[in-house]
Amino acid sequence: MLEWAAPESVDTPALVVDLDTLVANIERMASRMAARGVSLRPHTKTHKSVDIAALQVANGALGLTAASIGEAEVLAAAGFDDLFIAYPIVAAREKARRLARLAERTTVAVGVDSVEAGRLFVDHGLARALSLTIEIDTGQHRSGVPPSAAAQLAVDLSELGLRVDGVFTHAGQSYWDPDAPDRIAKEEAAMLAEAVERMASRGVVAHRVSAGATPTAVASAVPPVNEERPGTYVFNDRQQVGLGSAARADVALAVVATVVSTSVPGQAVIDAGSKALAADHQEWLDGFGVVPELGDAKVVRMSECHGVVALGDQPKPAIGTLVRVVPNHACPTVNLFDHYDVVRDGTVIDHWPVSARGHLA
Amino acid sequence: MLEWAAPESVDTPALVVDLDTLVANIERMASRMAARGVSLRPHTKTHKSVDIAALQVANGALGLTAASIGEAEVLAAAGFDDLFIAYPIVAAREKARRLARLAERTTVAVGVDSVEAGRLFVDHGLARALSLTIEIDTGQHRSGVPPSAAAQLAVDLSELGLRVDGVFTHAGQSYWDPDAPDRIAKEEAAMLAEAVERMASRGVVAHRVSAGATPTAVASAVPPVNEERPGTYVFNDRQQVGLGSAARADVALAVVATVVSTSVPGQAVIDAGSKALAADHQEWLDGFGVVPELGDAKVVRMSECHGVVALGDQPKPAIGTLVRVVPNHACPTVNLFDHYDVVRDGTVIDHWPVSARGHLA
Repeated sequence: MLEWAAPESVDTPALVVDLDTLVANIERMASRMAARGVSLRPHTKTHKSVDIAALQVANGALGLTAASIGEAEVLAAAGFDDLFIAYPIVAAREKARRLARLAERTTVAVGVDSVEAGRLFVDHGLARALSLTIEIDTGQHRSGVPPSAAAQLAVDLSELGLRVDGVFTHAGQSYWDPDAPDRIAKEEAAMLAEAVERMASRGVVAHRVSAGATPTAVASAVPPVNEERPGTYVFNDRQQVGLGSAARADVALAVVATVVSTSVPGQAVIDAGSKALAADHQEWLDGFGVVPELGDAKVVRMSECHGVVALGDQPKPAIGTLVRVVPNHACPTVNLFDHYDVVRDGTVIDHWPVSARGHLA
Repeated sequence: MLEWAAPESVDTPALVVDLDTLVANIERMASRMAARGVSLRPHTKTHKSVDIAALQVANGALGLTAASIGEAEVLAAAGFDDLFIAYPIVAAREKARRLARLAERTTVAVGVDSVEAGRLFVDHGLARALSLTIEIDTGQHRSGVPPSAAAQLAVDLSELGLRVDGVFTHAGQSYWDPDAPDRIAKEEAAMLAEAVERMASRGVVAHRVSAGATPTAVASAVPPVNEERPGTYVFNDRQQVGLGSAARADVALAVVATVVSTSVPGQAVIDAGSKALAADHQEWLDGFGVVPELGDAKVVRMSECHGVVALGDQPKPAIGTLVRVVPNHACPTVNLFDHYDVVRDGTVIDHWPVSARGHLA
């Protein structure tokens, strides 16, 4: 895991990204999508960085995806146009005012999965400001409507005077079982196709047919899907390697930490705990990250500022040793830091802000 | 859970603290410690707020505890003196320079659990700038030395020219079993007493004998313990209620969220996921938080920006409904926000920055 060298100059815990690996990941996904004639609209919730968004747009991304109005505001302020907030947006209170301002400066589409939410856009005078993309539940059972209900929702929203531009889904269940992503990608594309057909039979054309999740992005990029919204592919992480969507050499991100205690036999404590790595955790993945410098030893327990690494057969490292931790899931890890240390050939060459960190609302 | 009203005016997800409950919690712990003649040095990693630290100092706190040099820097910059960084500090690289600057402006003690770490203080010219408090492992098995090893470590550090001021421990294992805190508090105090006796027999006086963790703070406040460092007591949370260290009415903190989707039967989705609540999780506690407005329904699944609430017998809430979520563990939740909405009688009366958010290093 991690083919690149860790810099000695960072103050730990530090969020480090290897620029060459990052750019290679960005180019690879862009060329895969181009080969399939599918638009790439990367999800920026992963990196929350206007610098990385710029690299994506320079390398074939047609537009960008955000998870919140706040993330979209950061992108718009940095000059990015054509944004999709892939989230069931509720245009109540302050959010209605912020959406109106956002729509004045950029093209915005937002997710919707209920007539109730649709009515709020109308009530707040947003009917013509935004386009709405209907969320389809393709098996994650989080939000979205079943494919069979998409046509009626599209008709109901249209009758309210709202502009429906298509359908989207997130097959998040592809993270639950490392053997499942390819099967799930096929189901995802088939269920979107069903929704599109049913909408067409009621006279609603789905211009956007958008799937998205790094594990399924390539296999679901088949007609009628015409847009993919992967996020994590820019960095990759322990999950993506476990799911087979990335090779070990494709991991561009690590938390660099210091060994601070080895007083308890069999373990080393590093200064990266749940406030640096995040505690997000799939059931099939044991522990909270791996440490390549210690033979891929796992972070088996965390407090807020302590990560406990089970050493196994590894010799006890010296106090002060710098190690890299590959986190389970890059997205919540990044959200805990204010900036990236950007590395090339083992040297820090730049600092990029995590521009939209904490912009949850 | 939560005796106070949620404000209607916040933009969700929002971190909301009820001022009256907060102040009552601060005063209660201060009077309990005063009654036992034990110094209160609250851990500020919970709130990371100079406003709340000021309330603690105004209500009997003798000094403050931090988890990192960065947190201590924020406290020192705000004018607080007498700081203890209760962490095994490794004074290498940039951290050595920052510690030297910190010690110029305030009294600083830091944790230590190895001669190796002690040597780094000497190597970087910090021997007289700081005092060192030896960490004792009283059963959490994270960092710290056993009570039997404290005397030799104290002698070794003293021979290096370092100033040892006493011992400290964190009985974090009190969080693992809701039936255990009182037993663990007794063990904690007994093991600190053993360390102090052994040090005395080698001629090292432990001036500071410091225990700390909200579940054990009161029961471990017995001689020779002369200092307690609880943190979470200012807010309380679902864990503390489950552990019996707080009543439901003592919970001062919630994440206010909006119901954004009810398209999947039996559940409501709110706009607070793992990037708002944090995924920290004790095995005995099912789910990631409870929602008082929905009959204490649990957040059973989270994505980064979605919390899935299992409704059980509760009727489906309307899209746009505001709810409060009591998080499992207040500390990592707070660290995800930039500010508190401070509420009194259901109205937002102030905004406090989470001053040391992200100051991990």
